[in-house]
Amino acid sequence: MPLPIFQFEEYMTMKAKQVNRALDEAVPLQLPVKVHEAMRYSLLAGGKQLVEGDESSAMPIACALEMIHTMSLIHDDLPCMDNDDLRRGKPTNHIVFGEDTAILAGDALLTLAFEHVAAKTFNVSPDLVLQAIAELGSAVGSKGLVAGQIVDIDSEGKNVSLAELEYIHVHKTAKLLEASVVCGAIMGGGNMIDIERVRNYARCIGLLFQVVDDILDVTKSSTELGKTAGKDLVSDKATYPKLMGIDNAKKLATELVAQAIEELAYFDDARAAPLYHLANYIASRQN
Amino acid sequence: MPLPIFQFEEYMTMKAKQVNRALDEAVPLQLPVKVHEAMRYSLLAGGKQLVEGDESSAMPIACALEMIHTMSLIHDDLPCMDNDDLRRGKPTNHIVFGEDTAILAGDALLTLAFEHVAAKTFNVSPDLVLQAIAELGSAVGSKGLVAGQIVDIDSEGKNVSLAELEYIHVHKTAKLLEASVVCGAIMGGGNMIDIERVRNYARCIGLLFQVVDDILDVTKSSTELGKTAGKDLVSDKATYPKLMGIDNAKKLATELVAQAIEELAYFDDARAAPLYHLANYIASRQN
Repeated sequence: MPLPIFQFEEYMTMKAKQVNRALDEAVPLQLPVKVHEAMRYSLLAGGKQLVEGDESSAMPIACALEMIHTMSLIHDDLPCMDNDDLRRGKPTNHIVFGEDTAILAGDALLTLAFEHVAAKTFNVSPDLVLQAIAELGSAVGSKGLVAGQIVDIDSEGKNVSLAELEYIHVHKTAKLLEASVVCGAIMGGGNMIDIERVRNYARCIGLLFQVVDDILDVTKSSTELGKTAGKDLVSDKATYPKLMGIDNAKKLATELVAQAIEELAYFDDARAAPLYHLANYIASRQN
Repeated sequence: MPLPIFQFEEYMTMKAKQVNRALDEAVPLQLPVKVHEAMRYSLLAGGKQLVEGDESSAMPIACALEMIHTMSLIHDDLPCMDNDDLRRGKPTNHIVFGEDTAILAGDALLTLAFEHVAAKTFNVSPDLVLQAIAELGSAVGSKGLVAGQIVDIDSEGKNVSLAELEYIHVHKTAKLLEASVVCGAIMGGGNMIDIERVRNYARCIGLLFQVVDDILDVTKSSTELGKTAGKDLVSDKATYPKLMGIDNAKKLATELVAQAIEELAYFDDARAAPLYHLANYIASRQN
């Protein structure tokens, strides 16, 4: 039986705290102090990625995803990229530590992600850990996050088609989520067909996340969102509501949840429950 | 019997060509074109790292070291770091492709290094591949290359002590060389004691490389070097001859070769020969 939704939120909060503790231990404040300060500043600030599975086997991957996500935010915020001074209300990494240290802190976090999984994953067969490392790599590299960011930068100030918008979101947002879910399945010893189903599921909810985000931006007030509403309109950003209209965007969201849940039909209830909840949670979030 | 030195040079040239071919295949020109062009531009331009061992087992690590080395050069050349416009007579990556693409190309190369080793190493037990990945990571991250670069940047315009100079070189130059030799030993199934001996050897020749470089800069003409001589003096860079005098620097070089070769005494001749030659090659190079 799926857990009621409020329990799922509590469960996620608990997991996120565990990941934060593990990250705190994985990046202690050591010499050289400056780069480790910069790494910790951004790494321990954010919301946390989650990976399903036994703690000793899944925690290093959960930490690695968080290190990678943090690296991508630090580098994306740089003056030569998106030039952001604030993230989650705090000054961005390069504002606090300087551009040189911010770049190096990102490089160190990206490196540590792979090193951490290779050195700290226990109770999983080494060939599955290698598979998970390759999966992580493909999510981040020139066909993953980096591909999304480069196309995003290139599309600035141009008219973006729906296909391009999807390409950017699939790569910038959905790839890490996909890696998180797929790595969980790999470490759990899933077969190839299961892993492909989980991958399809993850692609749907990755896109869903962005569609819902775009819809909330135009349908909610700043108070409801807890952040400035309508800023996509102000910045003339390409969004789903803008490119396809709000009604079609809502229809797309509904279709994506349905598709995602369809992929779960092949798994037993106990295994599918957290993924089922995650899809509904993303679809129904109000801020 | 060790090979005569001229054969060793031919052997290195042949190996470097093999690595270059493997890199060409590992990073094909694919979509998104811009980031792959930027990756290939710097990756295929440089001199090549070598890793001893059977080709199918050692080549992915050799490629990974080259990807990592290239990433570190691309990021170090950025305006906010060393601000270099030229590298090996060619415009640096950010001059050709822009800072944003250069940062992303570096990120993609760093990522691919780990993914490539995880996905493409055959004929080696997976637990040894994981060990090699962890070794690579520790050579690059906040206690490796990144540590060297951050201390180097921080020491700019300050008086650098001999201990700081050594810290910078051990991390910026010697760590990758160490990883290269140690990964070779890991993949070859070396035991812990062998690996520590190889690590000590690599540390000595890594430092040796820099000491010899510094000596050549003040003792050779530009024609002999094939690059501008005396530029360390002009830029007032901290070097071994500057901090300890030319005679002591030469004495240090002799001691480092002797120490390096001492570590090899425990290995059989066939295995030690390439490492023995490498030490002598670095010690006796004239440009």
